[in-house]
Amino acid sequence: MNPTIDQMHAHRSVRKYTDDPVSAEHITQAMRAGQMAATSSAVQPYCVIHITDSTKRQQIADLAGPQQKVHDCGAFFIICADLRKHMLIVEKTGQQYDSSLEAFLVGTIDASLFAQNFNLAFESLGYGTCYIGGIRNDLPLLDKILNLPQGVCPLYGLCVGVPDESPSSRPRLAPDAMLFENTYPTDAETHAGINRYDEAYTTYLTERGAQPSTWSAAIAKKFSYAARPGLGDFFRSKGASLD
Amino acid sequence: MNPTIDQMHAHRSVRKYTDDPVSAEHITQAMRAGQMAATSSAVQPYCVIHITDSTKRQQIADLAGPQQKVHDCGAFFIICADLRKHMLIVEKTGQQYDSSLEAFLVGTIDASLFAQNFNLAFESLGYGTCYIGGIRNDLPLLDKILNLPQGVCPLYGLCVGVPDESPSSRPRLAPDAMLFENTYPTDAETHAGINRYDEAYTTYLTERGAQPSTWSAAIAKKFSYAARPGLGDFFRSKGASLD
Repeated sequence: MNPTIDQMHAHRSVRKYTDDPVSAEHITQAMRAGQMAATSSAVQPYCVIHITDSTKRQQIADLAGPQQKVHDCGAFFIICADLRKHMLIVEKTGQQYDSSLEAFLVGTIDASLFAQNFNLAFESLGYGTCYIGGIRNDLPLLDKILNLPQGVCPLYGLCVGVPDESPSSRPRLAPDAMLFENTYPTDAETHAGINRYDEAYTTYLTERGAQPSTWSAAIAKKFSYAARPGLGDFFRSKGASLD
Repeated sequence: MNPTIDQMHAHRSVRKYTDDPVSAEHITQAMRAGQMAATSSAVQPYCVIHITDSTKRQQIADLAGPQQKVHDCGAFFIICADLRKHMLIVEKTGQQYDSSLEAFLVGTIDASLFAQNFNLAFESLGYGTCYIGGIRNDLPLLDKILNLPQGVCPLYGLCVGVPDESPSSRPRLAPDAMLFENTYPTDAETHAGINRYDEAYTTYLTERGAQPSTWSAAIAKKFSYAARPGLGDFFRSKGASLD
């Protein structure tokens, strides 16, 4: 393999950090590397909000779980789809900004292509990281804490810090259950891939001393109700079209 | 810096490829490395469809532009948000699958965290790549070509091949126009960052011998109308909730 692929394989979500700070130089290096990710027609429809204010960090830690690591980690960032730059440019020309789901979708995609580079760059510099979907528990409150203008749509957070734990790697679905040729497989094939993964997942949990269970049991529980209702209303209230 | 960050800086979208194939071993390596990206609660809500059928490739090349590179590149993949695995698991338990925008959003985010690793892994193996948003020109037609079941939502394509060109790097917005502290900047600050970038962008175009223009002129044109209408209807027709 090679150092880049090895770095990807070294990924673990890290949830405990030392008190060491994340240097400003490293943040700039990770930004520049992150921004090298492709972006649709150079649109760059994303931004990052670095939360340095301790009170705001604690408020966000509380709404995201609570997850105290959001407050305690070396640096905490919020990754946003950013339609505002484009709104301001269009309005300056006297036209009206108009968009469909395409703009929000590209915002989410390009923010995430950036974020994975940003994240991997931090890991390559010796930091541990953890994405925080929990900020979507209460986006209206987050919006108030950060006083965000129209067009700025927070998607998820990222904790970064010097690792204070060495977690093991959680197994993934086998590549042949994720990569298909020319079409999607039959339901029988999909179930077979899930069954194989359930076995690997149970072994992983058992080896960690956790209660043995299966991936599909967790999934069945998670997708039998509509999680985090109101996200659509929130993003529409910030000027994103979802149509 | 380090080899991983250097690899990110080496990124260029490559649009011309030699006739050399992409090896099956490299595809598996890139899949495994891609799948090491974080995924929310291990949900893994994405899949990749490798288009090896030449007729289908040409049909997709046509609807995506036409963009002949989609047909001609060494390997072409379609990255999808995949809610189907979860639908099948929930239905097997006798419950009803239910979701909100959260599921589609996490599908899009996690697919893209995967895709950026997948893409960077291919680049680290010596290939050139280009994301293809053009598949969203006609998702109902793509859906027919691939015969996709409920829950599978194509997001974008990825061309991979041995580079047959060495394009220069397009400049990005400055990090201080993308990374903010605790809130979003004022409109005056945003406009100042755009103006600085417009200058760099014009220089880049001029140096390439292209018609000099600005980034903001391209953006003003692009966001004065709702591009690709109907995406929301399409994803809803595949069982995704956007509420």
